[in-house]
Amino acid sequence: MIAQYRGVYSADLPLPSEALAAFFAAWTPAPKRVETVPLHAAVGRVLARDVRSTAGVPEFPRSAMDGFALRADDVRSADPLRPRFLKLAGEVRPGSRAALEHGTAFRVATGAPLPLGANAVVRVEDVFLDANAIGISRPVPIGTDVIEAGEDIAAGATPARAGTALNAATLGVLAALGEEQVAVYRRPSVALLSTGDEVIPVGGSPRPGEVRDSNGIALAAMLRSLGVAVGTVTHAGDELAALGRAFDGALEAHDAVVLSGGSSVGVRDYTTAALARREPPGVIVHGVRMKPGRPILLAASGARPIIGLPGNPTAAMLGLMTLGAPILAAMTGGSATLPPSFGIAAEPLTGKAGWACYVPVRVDSDGGVRAIEHFCSTYISSLVEADGYVHLDPERPNIAPGEPVRVYRLP
Amino acid sequence: MIAQYRGVYSADLPLPSEALAAFFAAWTPAPKRVETVPLHAAVGRVLARDVRSTAGVPEFPRSAMDGFALRADDVRSADPLRPRFLKLAGEVRPGSRAALEHGTAFRVATGAPLPLGANAVVRVEDVFLDANAIGISRPVPIGTDVIEAGEDIAAGATPARAGTALNAATLGVLAALGEEQVAVYRRPSVALLSTGDEVIPVGGSPRPGEVRDSNGIALAAMLRSLGVAVGTVTHAGDELAALGRAFDGALEAHDAVVLSGGSSVGVRDYTTAALARREPPGVIVHGVRMKPGRPILLAASGARPIIGLPGNPTAAMLGLMTLGAPILAAMTGGSATLPPSFGIAAEPLTGKAGWACYVPVRVDSDGGVRAIEHFCSTYISSLVEADGYVHLDPERPNIAPGEPVRVYRLP
Repeated sequence: MIAQYRGVYSADLPLPSEALAAFFAAWTPAPKRVETVPLHAAVGRVLARDVRSTAGVPEFPRSAMDGFALRADDVRSADPLRPRFLKLAGEVRPGSRAALEHGTAFRVATGAPLPLGANAVVRVEDVFLDANAIGISRPVPIGTDVIEAGEDIAAGATPARAGTALNAATLGVLAALGEEQVAVYRRPSVALLSTGDEVIPVGGSPRPGEVRDSNGIALAAMLRSLGVAVGTVTHAGDELAALGRAFDGALEAHDAVVLSGGSSVGVRDYTTAALARREPPGVIVHGVRMKPGRPILLAASGARPIIGLPGNPTAAMLGLMTLGAPILAAMTGGSATLPPSFGIAAEPLTGKAGWACYVPVRVDSDGGVRAIEHFCSTYISSLVEADGYVHLDPERPNIAPGEPVRVYRLP
Repeated sequence: MIAQYRGVYSADLPLPSEALAAFFAAWTPAPKRVETVPLHAAVGRVLARDVRSTAGVPEFPRSAMDGFALRADDVRSADPLRPRFLKLAGEVRPGSRAALEHGTAFRVATGAPLPLGANAVVRVEDVFLDANAIGISRPVPIGTDVIEAGEDIAAGATPARAGTALNAATLGVLAALGEEQVAVYRRPSVALLSTGDEVIPVGGSPRPGEVRDSNGIALAAMLRSLGVAVGTVTHAGDELAALGRAFDGALEAHDAVVLSGGSSVGVRDYTTAALARREPPGVIVHGVRMKPGRPILLAASGARPIIGLPGNPTAAMLGLMTLGAPILAAMTGGSATLPPSFGIAAEPLTGKAGWACYVPVRVDSDGGVRAIEHFCSTYISSLVEADGYVHLDPERPNIAPGEPVRVYRLP
């Protein structure tokens, strides 16, 4: 009878994918706001506009190597027994576009513009250097070690599109295009509320039964890695009036609220009541068929999502990465997960039929994936050694050794 | 004869592993400095001291679930046909350690301390709730849904060791231990010098033959992701007096210098001469048997490394990640690479026998690894689409489709 009750209860819960589908069906995010930041401060930000290249990169043919610019037809007949000699006409300096006469060569450094008429470069180590000439003992095909105008980025191309998270290489491209400032989506501001009477600040000395607010620190770090600004990190007890004030204040001042411990019965009941007085849709999901993280609550007040995470540290962190991240990604314009890594199961990975299971794993230096040994959703230490987590499918909950697995990284 | 010259020249160059071995044999980093930062600002920093747990976490037995704390022997004979009933003695509040009498149960929220005498928890969904009693129809083994004192982190354990890069979960552990401040290694300060007469600031309008300083932006972003503070980002031309002043100033004021374009003949010659007037060891490596990145220069003035990268953008970025990162890691205390991902070659990946080749790749959603199509070491756009790079071994330069490959991520 207990088993029956549990079975019915669990079967009623949505899977994570269903929970997110229900959430996104009921919730409309606010239009993303745009701000302009200097390029050097834009790493990790999400581009808000397509960036077009008005000129090609490079704008002119350049040498790809330290060497000598020449006309390929001047050395077409060169061979080791009958090298061709070209008179040195000088060195190309930036800002100059010298013209290359037949039978001559210009010294060019890597990146230097080719003189007019030159169509190939021979590398410095491939010539005999004479006082005022170079000897070449093989033909140099047209285009050798030349970067043509627009070869890297064509004029009119769109090398960076809205929605791109700006990595080092993309910032370099924007710099090459002369974009000193860049339009990016504003980081949504997220309030983090740690609930629970037993939770005390990190600096406090716990009385019997009290614990320090470790979730506040860990979830704030994760939230920042998801591209949001963590607003007030307020600790609120279980006392409903105080919780109510903190919750109302957070919802007024921020774009989203994350509750740690907010899926407990008391806080969930309160949140439900508090949201009933506010804009729809209110509570959309409470309880998800996932392990850990079953008591997760997803709600919204107008465009503001409320993500209620379990108080158990590992469950809270995995819940934020699996259900919180896709919701926040819709606000940041970024991606819902870090790019997954891949590995090979080095031992059986065991889930539970009908449930979505998230298993913290280590990835060894050969790509072998093992569940971490000291794991419990209530531990704060479980994820310290984890390189990431594996999602075990409700319909295919077990992975055998040797099977490939996708590993989602943890920040 | 050209081939012979090139062959001898290339064979004389060290492989990347040999270049680093030579560098580390000649260079002694300065002792790492330590600073104390607040926990919330410590993400990504490297712990400078072991952190010991003076008390266990949790400090007391806690409930892992919302439910009822009981004595296991009270319900040993419970079965669905003859449920056992326990009188409800109240709810445990933090700060209280009530005692549990035989035949009774206390309501406990997740995380609440167990009353004295209780040794198991039954979940709220697994009982029949009566007005002042609960009915239980199965035995509840000792320890069920209880987190014992010290079970998460034992008293006297060292859950975080010096050298650990602080991720969200580790910060949570430090918070649980009451560490409001944390001792981390100071970030070394690295000066970045873009050399080359043709290089102009990002905001400038290039005359013919000039290019904007894209490497400065891209390398600064990469350097920050490697855990260093990027000091002055100074652009210095090729003019030797100006270069000399910039180089000398950078070396005086910073812990390391990265030169972009600093492997070109002129800058290399200058650097060699400038270093000859300074503390040993001076230039240790110039030229490495790698593609791209052959002209890389590694030098040191006393404890200060000088990393001369090619001016070609992709070569510079890959050179920084492959040869620069391990050197900087010795100064930051962090790790030399981001943890590699793994994948399966989806096409042949082709290197060059005898050379270390670094090939930018994309990893598709099934883990298939493909070389990016638009690749040239002189392009700035080559790495925009790359998820990372693959290292092709000099002795086994080709990877066949279906073989597993390690993918190093790019920041």
